[in-house]
Amino acid sequence: MSKAKKLESEVVESPDDIQIPAPDLAHTLIRPFEFLVNSRDNCHRNALVILNQSLTGIDVPRLWSNTELHVCADGGANQLYDYFEADTKSHSHLATEQTSEQASDLIRQQYIPQFIVGDLDSLRDDVRDYYERKGARIIPQYTQYSTDFSKAIATVRLYYYSEASRQVLVNDSIDTNNGLAEIIEKYEAGSKQEQTVRIYILSGIGGRFDQTIHSISQLYILNQSHPFLQHFFITTSDLIFLLKKGVNYVAYPSKTTFHSAQVPTCGLLPLGNSKVMISSHGLKYDVRNWESEMLGNVSSSNGISGVDGVVVEVSGPLVMNIEIEHGVEDSKL
Amino acid sequence: MSKAKKLESEVVESPDDIQIPAPDLAHTLIRPFEFLVNSRDNCHRNALVILNQSLTGIDVPRLWSNTELHVCADGGANQLYDYFEADTKSHSHLATEQTSEQASDLIRQQYIPQFIVGDLDSLRDDVRDYYERKGARIIPQYTQYSTDFSKAIATVRLYYYSEASRQVLVNDSIDTNNGLAEIIEKYEAGSKQEQTVRIYILSGIGGRFDQTIHSISQLYILNQSHPFLQHFFITTSDLIFLLKKGVNYVAYPSKTTFHSAQVPTCGLLPLGNSKVMISSHGLKYDVRNWESEMLGNVSSSNGISGVDGVVVEVSGPLVMNIEIEHGVEDSKL
Repeated sequence: MSKAKKLESEVVESPDDIQIPAPDLAHTLIRPFEFLVNSRDNCHRNALVILNQSLTGIDVPRLWSNTELHVCADGGANQLYDYFEADTKSHSHLATEQTSEQASDLIRQQYIPQFIVGDLDSLRDDVRDYYERKGARIIPQYTQYSTDFSKAIATVRLYYYSEASRQVLVNDSIDTNNGLAEIIEKYEAGSKQEQTVRIYILSGIGGRFDQTIHSISQLYILNQSHPFLQHFFITTSDLIFLLKKGVNYVAYPSKTTFHSAQVPTCGLLPLGNSKVMISSHGLKYDVRNWESEMLGNVSSSNGISGVDGVVVEVSGPLVMNIEIEHGVEDSKL
Repeated sequence: MSKAKKLESEVVESPDDIQIPAPDLAHTLIRPFEFLVNSRDNCHRNALVILNQSLTGIDVPRLWSNTELHVCADGGANQLYDYFEADTKSHSHLATEQTSEQASDLIRQQYIPQFIVGDLDSLRDDVRDYYERKGARIIPQYTQYSTDFSKAIATVRLYYYSEASRQVLVNDSIDTNNGLAEIIEKYEAGSKQEQTVRIYILSGIGGRFDQTIHSISQLYILNQSHPFLQHFFITTSDLIFLLKKGVNYVAYPSKTTFHSAQVPTCGLLPLGNSKVMISSHGLKYDVRNWESEMLGNVSSSNGISGVDGVVVEVSGPLVMNIEIEHGVEDSKL
């Protein structure tokens, strides 16, 4: 097959473990697994967004403790509430033998989101009452011309834009149709924020397929309009993020931070409406000047060989996914 | 926001239920939910491919009885085997109170795939022994330059190409590196088959994200090279397939065939690396001459209003997903 021949000539197989130095050239530094490295410093300007899909298999407490802003999009609040139901045994960091409702609630009240936002057609009344009583701010946004995902991201942008915009979000009355978007547009009309904000998103990918693709579309669009937002989608099986045009250095303390396999699986996914030229260093199947497009070559079932980082140079933004094992403990940390 | 304004000007909201006649013009007829309509006729030239990911929540027996060819890709055979474990209560069509291993096996032996294909790095020994003993043909294909998914599709193509090619698949020795692809290439060098083959694929979408995107990439590529193959990816939440360039009529007996909601959710997803112009008739938010691309408009969280079909005209191939509820019974059938 012609495809196989093309692959053979442009793909180089690497050993399972190779040391990749950080690039000398100007590059984008991406550290996708910071949320697994417990440290107070990691919270700063890190947000967690929870969408409406089961959280089973996700280590929510760990993510929570490594982020400072917590936003639920509509029924995402139901998911958070239900996560702390009686069956707490399944949550790796909640070692308790008590299974009563009371015990569930003792844990639940340690995880109160600051904001619940969306058209609120999914939010259950009991969940709304509970979180409101515990201090969460409910922000109805009824417009059907943007999604709950977009409304949650607007909340994060407003929170981090400036002290003044944060106060609006916390205290002011906000128009219930499309107020958030209007307020953030007003602020950003002056100048966009330039300090990186890291946003971890639970359940944006892996459920209904149109939601998954909406998430990916927003990843590309927000990268153009708001390059200082770094989005990381977390699923039960992987972490998904955008490589920027140019040289990217994806760094981590060690592969055991996120997976116990010697060569965790990864992929380079050209989902942005155009062909992308890729050169990599540190993947199991490294590519050189490799043209990737949906109707041609797509690097799936590749692997991570770099012991503490990989370098990927791309001619345009490109989605990368890395396999992740929830609950793996890194003895080196 | 400019995007919202653009949407407002080109999107028309429909009632929840509207009658959409089949188009007069030449069109592609797609009947995605035939596998839910029990009938012996529906088996003919219908194949089921099972990949390596949990089958929990999927009604495997129903799919099985509405397809005639059953192929497991590598560890997909483990998933099939484990599906019929003692906990049979969760399988809607297996109403039994017996939970012993023996009872599991009585059911399991009714679902023996004809072929298990792949590099076999995931297939468990006990599973291989079991299915081999029960008559499945194991076809090792060790090449790493194609995926288990592609190997399974090659098996389906060979099975349906001709009586002669089917005999090769069933009886002849097949080179264990890349034999399948070589054999099918030899047959198809003469002429491609022209009769439609419907392929239902379990677990190609919704697991590891690079596998999901590989599946979508193959959907586009196979549509170019093998337009008579119709692929349907089934997940726990939706059905995913390709609309062809031109007018498509997506038909079903009634919405209750696949979902109990009055307006099941759907999406139109431009994943083929180019812009697509869309006009629709029968969606909740119908679009007219609407340009869709990943860095612009993507129709997600749309809905199905057409009571027994919708029409979608597209300037190029486009992925559609429709929300599905497993285990819903249509009283009208």
